[in-house]
Amino acid sequence: MTEPLDTTSDRRPGGRTARIRAQVLDAVRAELTAHGHEGLTMEGVATRAGVHRATVYRRWRDVGGLLVDVIAAAGEIDWQPPDTGSLSGDLTALNQEIQESLVAQPSLAVALMAASFHSEQAARAQTQLWTDRYAQCEILVERAIERGELGTQHTDARSLLIAATAPLYHQMVLLRADPDPQLPERAAQATVLAAAAGAFCIRREESV
Amino acid sequence: MTEPLDTTSDRRPGGRTARIRAQVLDAVRAELTAHGHEGLTMEGVATRAGVHRATVYRRWRDVGGLLVDVIAAAGEIDWQPPDTGSLSGDLTALNQEIQESLVAQPSLAVALMAASFHSEQAARAQTQLWTDRYAQCEILVERAIERGELGTQHTDARSLLIAATAPLYHQMVLLRADPDPQLPERAAQATVLAAAAGAFCIRREESV
Repeated sequence: MTEPLDTTSDRRPGGRTARIRAQVLDAVRAELTAHGHEGLTMEGVATRAGVHRATVYRRWRDVGGLLVDVIAAAGEIDWQPPDTGSLSGDLTALNQEIQESLVAQPSLAVALMAASFHSEQAARAQTQLWTDRYAQCEILVERAIERGELGTQHTDARSLLIAATAPLYHQMVLLRADPDPQLPERAAQATVLAAAAGAFCIRREESV
Repeated sequence: MTEPLDTTSDRRPGGRTARIRAQVLDAVRAELTAHGHEGLTMEGVATRAGVHRATVYRRWRDVGGLLVDVIAAAGEIDWQPPDTGSLSGDLTALNQEIQESLVAQPSLAVALMAASFHSEQAARAQTQLWTDRYAQCEILVERAIERGELGTQHTDARSLLIAATAPLYHQMVLLRADPDPQLPERAAQATVLAAAAGAFCIRREESV
């Protein structure tokens, strides 16, 4: 769930500090998508942002610090999971958002994933953002249980969400397949069928 | 399906050319797992392999050439998909192989995925290897259809295989989760339940 990374809504009304942060993070996003992690430098970011290099060094310290803050800014966005009225619809909409973020040319989401292979700090920040987003999405499963779509109270929401979204990441990021417009819906429906058949049930002893 | 990359069975009996290739590719694997893609250099490989630099440059040209040949060597291995007698058992065994290759510390498979974000050549070679491996695994689905496990002749084998294996890659490579010993079996069983419920059916008009 990387789509919020593409927005720039960390520009809250605020003083000079907030404005400088917005300029610098915009520059990081632009540099990352243009040149990738290997081309990301403190100097390049300062120049593009029109901010003193000393300010960038003092506040973000190094490239890892810039990456962490770009990811943190994505987490500050007021993102809401889809609410279409059915689990299949919700997962399809979620997968469509994910697919859009991954097929963008260039894709900031993919650039950040690439960067996280080279920066422990960025990897930790990205893992945390994903953990938060999957936790937010658990409501999709809770709503489906309330609607009686899953026929059980004992569904492991996170496993279900990973199963639904993983094929998108695998196909687009690792297998580098051409985008398949049917995949968001197909992956969602396969997961709903599996869930209805009890695939993500938590065993009794685990749920107590 | 990256597990064969960890072996060194490209050492076929052969002359000096084959021996030098084996030495150089062993050195590439060792350097990659030790220092990652960023630390991989022609000089480092030549030194570790005990082969003249000029030979390495002449035959592999650049780091991209070395990566492509390491991936090609993995494709030359006589890898066979599991054959346990059931689709669920086969997919579980396959996922266990994948999980092992991804949790290895250091993991050559993960190092190659990281490298493929920085080398177009490596990315193409890796995509080709994965395409071949998934094609090899289609026999798992064909056998399941013959055994009557799926109740239909019209199952899209590749989609099923992607659904079964994607959660492993997503959890281990992108989400950097701790290895979950239950995941290989859980992901396999969820996919079998989805398949039995018709999730990967090819629509009539598409299969004609």
